Amino acid sequence: MSPPRVVIVGCGFAGLWAAQAFRKAPLDVTVIDRTNHHLFTPLLYQVATAGLSAPSVAGPIRHILADQKNVTVFLGEVRAVDLAKRAVRLEDGQELGYDYLVLAPGTTHSYFGHDEWAPYAQGLKTLEDALEIRRRVLSAFERAEREADAARRAAWLTFVVVGGGATGVELAGTFAEIARHTLRGEFRRIDPHNARVVLVEGANRVLPPYPPALSAKAQLALERLGVTVWPSRMVTGIDAEGVSLGAERLACKTVIWAAGVAASPLGAALGAPLDRAGRVKVEPDLSVAGHPEVFVAGDLAAVEKVPGIAPAAKQMGRHAAKNILRLIARQPSTKFRYRDYGQLATIGRNTAVAVIGKLELSGFPAWLVWLVAHIYFLINFRNRLVVMLDWGWAYFTYQRYARIIIRALK
Amino acid sequence: MSPPRVVIVGCGFAGLWAAQAFRKAPLDVTVIDRTNHHLFTPLLYQVATAGLSAPSVAGPIRHILADQKNVTVFLGEVRAVDLAKRAVRLEDGQELGYDYLVLAPGTTHSYFGHDEWAPYAQGLKTLEDALEIRRRVLSAFERAEREADAARRAAWLTFVVVGGGATGVELAGTFAEIARHTLRGEFRRIDPHNARVVLVEGANRVLPPYPPALSAKAQLALERLGVTVWPSRMVTGIDAEGVSLGAERLACKTVIWAAGVAASPLGAALGAPLDRAGRVKVEPDLSVAGHPEVFVAGDLAAVEKVPGIAPAAKQMGRHAAKNILRLIARQPSTKFRYRDYGQLATIGRNTAVAVIGKLELSGFPAWLVWLVAHIYFLINFRNRLVVMLDWGWAYFTYQRYARIIIRALK
Repeated sequence: MSPPRVVIVGCGFAGLWAAQAFRKAPLDVTVIDRTNHHLFTPLLYQVATAGLSAPSVAGPIRHILADQKNVTVFLGEVRAVDLAKRAVRLEDGQELGYDYLVLAPGTTHSYFGHDEWAPYAQGLKTLEDALEIRRRVLSAFERAEREADAARRAAWLTFVVVGGGATGVELAGTFAEIARHTLRGEFRRIDPHNARVVLVEGANRVLPPYPPALSAKAQLALERLGVTVWPSRMVTGIDAEGVSLGAERLACKTVIWAAGVAASPLGAALGAPLDRAGRVKVEPDLSVAGHPEVFVAGDLAAVEKVPGIAPAAKQMGRHAAKNILRLIARQPSTKFRYRDYGQLATIGRNTAVAVIGKLELSGFPAWLVWLVAHIYFLINFRNRLVVMLDWGWAYFTYQRYARIIIRALK
Repeated sequence: MSPPRVVIVGCGFAGLWAAQAFRKAPLDVTVIDRTNHHLFTPLLYQVATAGLSAPSVAGPIRHILADQKNVTVFLGEVRAVDLAKRAVRLEDGQELGYDYLVLAPGTTHSYFGHDEWAPYAQGLKTLEDALEIRRRVLSAFERAEREADAARRAAWLTFVVVGGGATGVELAGTFAEIARHTLRGEFRRIDPHNARVVLVEGANRVLPPYPPALSAKAQLALERLGVTVWPSRMVTGIDAEGVSLGAERLACKTVIWAAGVAASPLGAALGAPLDRAGRVKVEPDLSVAGHPEVFVAGDLAAVEKVPGIAPAAKQMGRHAAKNILRLIARQPSTKFRYRDYGQLATIGRNTAVAVIGKLELSGFPAWLVWLVAHIYFLINFRNRLVVMLDWGWAYFTYQRYARIIIRALK
């Protein structure tokens, strides 16, 4: 009898942790991802801000899983799931049958129904997104240096980050550091210090999932770095020349979108109930109602009180895999319980905020926790070494070595 | 009186060394480059073969020149030189006047009149080219893993490198190492060891500028690595399905072009005599006939017995700058003399060939010379550290950490 076939769609934290939970199980596991790499998304903003190179935050999936002989890795994009036939369809029409399915495709940007903003407001989900943000931000300073007209120069030196969650805070803080420190003394016609970084958040404070006291500290830390923080403001328009906020207009050439995510469209095709963000309302064991052989894990799964962060995705991926192993062993599946290890967001050099259980940290202690945690959880030993070297260098020199625009004159 | 204006077009080895030779001179120097970085081209093939990340072989021009206060750096593309008006025109129409000009724009790929081959035969000149080669080569193995048809699978696993100069030899040798070592054990349906790497060279031996004995050793070393070396063969056709060599046809999906370069079209516009490759036949002092204020340096300059390698470009750039300083001091310009420090080409792990004066080296001693020279000449200290770490890691593990496809499903 051939071993049960498990297909895992997506190799982010949920998919990879599911695959690794099948280690040594007598299964035929296929992992399918649109890219060839597992991405350490918590550090993706560092690629966008030229602090790390792309390979420092990504590891080839088939290298990570090389020793797990029951796993086949396919580079491909799952376009559809046929629940009745128990098969997924890839971008070239190829079909792969499964006995058990783990669906962990993650999210994409959502412009809240304003897809026309997409070309002007770059989001951050993939390495390609990160390199595009790097290109736009560094190129803006280059354009400003060549611009004779003062108003246009000011627009090139204005950077708007939409969305005050962890990603928005990290990007805005680092942009301010780049303008004030990294680029100092390198331009002749402009002073990068005059760059204006504006962080716009719809809620009444940045980092809404955090306790209000930490949000206030984060805002203060951002303002000290030179970021203009605008809470309680809604973006109503984005085009090539700037951003509208109701009646107000801000001339700027670079807008970064850190505001909204939408679940993968694969969720909608399952026929299961969805939440407002398009995530699948899964059963307590993470399966899809009426399909005990199909599990959803990571950002596509809507589970009450579970945040969309890496530790939650890992736990869901591992739990889905363990439930599959239980079903194969003819045992009942178990309920998913989220174990909350806390949340961390960095703001800039020496400053971060953290919630760990009942402990609330900010400033330098939070930053140290952030630093150690992120280096510790990086996927392989070599990346850890490189990232430590890069950060050590950057810390003492204020330099950011990945300041390379790959496609300069786009 | 305002200081003399010097414009330097291109910031490769010639342009950067010219700019640095003006250090402390009372001049108004403008450096214009199409990218924001100086590229260490001798190691570009390592980016293409996933051994180094892009930022490891590139440094931001304005960072390198930050302390040289007489230099302004512009990201831009010079489209035309107006010799009569003494001005260069940028891509947006902006004009920059000069009193002295150093033209060092380098080369581009040449398909010998077969521009229709370009989409199928990726060349290697820029970081973008290198990432595209990386993408194509790594993706070919991914496609092979998913391909059920044996003939098509074989075409995905066949890699043709056109051109047996230093770049072609380096690429072919490294592709063979990737197939035999780096990817070992990571695929389930294909054996990467079965990949075929073919190096095609029109001359009767690889590395034609080297002594015949070293060419023979290089061929032997390539063959030991598993490369099929085909000297004395001319490519007569390249399309999406393979390569034609006269009556012979080789089915392959990945072709790399390391065969021909053409000088920048800026040379043709000067009205000076050109050689067959489109390079400007400069005066003995590197100036353009009839225009003592215009100098050509680097790959665009045709100087007898001077090879198109980095040390020659540096020497020309520095010499052009020194002649400009002499002219400003009302002294006659001097003749350029090339100082030959030798040539080096690496083939793979532990093996290279080198000519240093009358000394001919091959195998491990040549490889050591290559290693030390390339780390030594890397542009800044931090890159050297990172490259040493990357190479140390790769040497002992056979791994190549930059195996990241940034745009996977293109």
